Amino acid sequence: MIPTLADAEARDAGDQLGHFRARFELPPEVIYLDGNSLGALPLETPDRLEQVVREQWGKGLIGSWNTARWIEAPQTVGGKIAQLIGAAPDEVIVADSTSVNLYKLLAAALLADAAKHIILTEPGNFPTDLYIARGLAALRPGVSVRTVSRDEITAAAGPETLVLLTHVHYKTGARFDLAETTRAIRARGGTIVWDLSHSVGAVPLALGDARVELAVGCGYKYLNGGPGAPAFLYVARHLQTTLHSPLTGWMGHAAPFAFDNDYAPAPDLRRFLCGTPPILGIAALDVGVDLTLEAGMPAVARKSSQLCDLFIACLDETVELALITPRDSEARGSHVSYAHPEGYAVMQALIARGIIGDFRAPDVIRFGITPLYTRFADVWHAARILREILADRAWDNQAYRTRAAVT
Amino acid sequence: MIPTLADAEARDAGDQLGHFRARFELPPEVIYLDGNSLGALPLETPDRLEQVVREQWGKGLIGSWNTARWIEAPQTVGGKIAQLIGAAPDEVIVADSTSVNLYKLLAAALLADAAKHIILTEPGNFPTDLYIARGLAALRPGVSVRTVSRDEITAAAGPETLVLLTHVHYKTGARFDLAETTRAIRARGGTIVWDLSHSVGAVPLALGDARVELAVGCGYKYLNGGPGAPAFLYVARHLQTTLHSPLTGWMGHAAPFAFDNDYAPAPDLRRFLCGTPPILGIAALDVGVDLTLEAGMPAVARKSSQLCDLFIACLDETVELALITPRDSEARGSHVSYAHPEGYAVMQALIARGIIGDFRAPDVIRFGITPLYTRFADVWHAARILREILADRAWDNQAYRTRAAVT
Repeated sequence: MIPTLADAEARDAGDQLGHFRARFELPPEVIYLDGNSLGALPLETPDRLEQVVREQWGKGLIGSWNTARWIEAPQTVGGKIAQLIGAAPDEVIVADSTSVNLYKLLAAALLADAAKHIILTEPGNFPTDLYIARGLAALRPGVSVRTVSRDEITAAAGPETLVLLTHVHYKTGARFDLAETTRAIRARGGTIVWDLSHSVGAVPLALGDARVELAVGCGYKYLNGGPGAPAFLYVARHLQTTLHSPLTGWMGHAAPFAFDNDYAPAPDLRRFLCGTPPILGIAALDVGVDLTLEAGMPAVARKSSQLCDLFIACLDETVELALITPRDSEARGSHVSYAHPEGYAVMQALIARGIIGDFRAPDVIRFGITPLYTRFADVWHAARILREILADRAWDNQAYRTRAAVT
Repeated sequence: MIPTLADAEARDAGDQLGHFRARFELPPEVIYLDGNSLGALPLETPDRLEQVVREQWGKGLIGSWNTARWIEAPQTVGGKIAQLIGAAPDEVIVADSTSVNLYKLLAAALLADAAKHIILTEPGNFPTDLYIARGLAALRPGVSVRTVSRDEITAAAGPETLVLLTHVHYKTGARFDLAETTRAIRARGGTIVWDLSHSVGAVPLALGDARVELAVGCGYKYLNGGPGAPAFLYVARHLQTTLHSPLTGWMGHAAPFAFDNDYAPAPDLRRFLCGTPPILGIAALDVGVDLTLEAGMPAVARKSSQLCDLFIACLDETVELALITPRDSEARGSHVSYAHPEGYAVMQALIARGIIGDFRAPDVIRFGITPLYTRFADVWHAARILREILADRAWDNQAYRTRAAVT
């Protein structure tokens, strides 16, 4: 039986995170279920940026590297992200993009252990992970990339493998058991790098407890850091002085302003910095991270699970849709995906009616569930409109089949 | 004879670029001669950022990748920078940091020509260039880094060398002859990557005429793109489909949103993109680039030369200072540097009197000359105050000798 709107509204009335919605800019005419692709704008962000730009850059000029502590920003915001993922503050740093950070950690892991020469991942992993691994293999003779299906990863891991997995799958939403997978791969002599892009700010993460050694993650999805926000990387403390980034830019130097000819890596995670930190991007990311910290990850993760459950329940009787996301909330992230042969057109019809999700080729419609600004009633209405579009075949319209550059 | 203030003020009165100063935020109490380290804030930047953030991100949300053309921003702003450096619009793209872009081009050049196994550069090059070369050599067996003094570079180049030079030296301001050096190195079978960080927006550049093949540059110095602004890279058109970036992130794919398992590089310079473009940073950079385009590089470069000449003339009788920047304006960039054994303290004394330059170890005081917002009277006053500080030994004060984290 489909839950009623009254059910959903009752959940909103009792929602301890409900007041966070007012902290975001959200166009009233849409229900935004694409925060897993680009998180919404925190209302505080424009003011923060204005302050950083007008005061710190405009008036403080070069001196703001010291006085406004710009130089520490990668560590300061990294230390906050650490609290969201169960890491120590000095185990996370903000830098570059997810792709670049992946490259750094994969290369560092290969350089640290000559036995490692196979990067093992799953086909259908988020493309940048696959591509970055292949780019590295092209540069480093003897290194190859091997893909096996996700249930065969552990068995395929060994002392020669560097495993690269995305914790929550970008398309299906399926979530690996972080601790168990890490344990199993390390027990077989493998090293593992986790991509947390679809996890951070969405699901519970305890990297320290799970004995995770290496991870990267994205700032512009659930962390609401803005389009192309800086990413982060995590290196367990015991590895920080033995691993070496291949991207030895000056900001990773032990003394960047000594301008030495020789490279000496910083004695801590700063060695994984490369160029000059992107201060505007980090400032915007900081606001998003603070909001999630204020809400608290346990509450955020709990509401995510409840919202996803409600959305799935509202669509359980919709025979046109094939749920590809696990029903078990422990086994999924914070988005829900369905396969439909006309998925692209279905999503366009949804967008035309104000429901913003996204499409992932070849046939997946995907709905991001962002607990900080999504109401139970929102997912109820989104499901209702989706049911209507399918019942009426409203997607069967040439205008909805014409593809845009970015979808 | 030292030029008079009246001379300087007369130059300002006749300065065709004089009105650009009002387009920047400049604290009235300082004379800012550090725009070669962090360019000043264009007044339009906060408004542009507010529009990008509040309208495009806040209201347009994910759709802004298409509707606000975010996806094209790296090429759009790159095409504008191309006009400043004598390149075709499709030969420049905005991406990542200077350091990361250097890595991409060095690695691409090595991958393209198996004969190349020596990265040749000069000791004392900007440290990130040296460090990045060494990081790449550590990852790529058989590749080594060799440094020879700048006047020996050409003779040391051959078919086995990939030369990496900074066009305008960050410390001395000495400028290579771009066309002649490129010609000589290519004639010997070498490949050359130019770092234009201290050149772009400051001195005349004609990359196409000089037959330059590969270059990178910085967005936060003379281009006034803000702290940690995105950088750019240039690849001559004839190389764009044969070179391969090692950082094969999804944005470099021919069809990023097809989510293919296999990597297929974009058929143009987009193949040198890696992760998701930093939209806030690119928006700020765009404003700075537009201002330089509006002023026109010939006028900017001419005024740079005149300002540097005036500053040097004002200090020519100051025996405590050793000019380390070439007097010939064709042989220098847009900053002027002096050696002084107590350089650090001298610069602190200057800053205490409102003259913002910077110090570069071990003994160099450096003054950036940014024609868009620096007046002839500014450099005259800066020189006068420097003379006073030296005459009075005002630098001889413990407070000025205590070093900050960033200088």
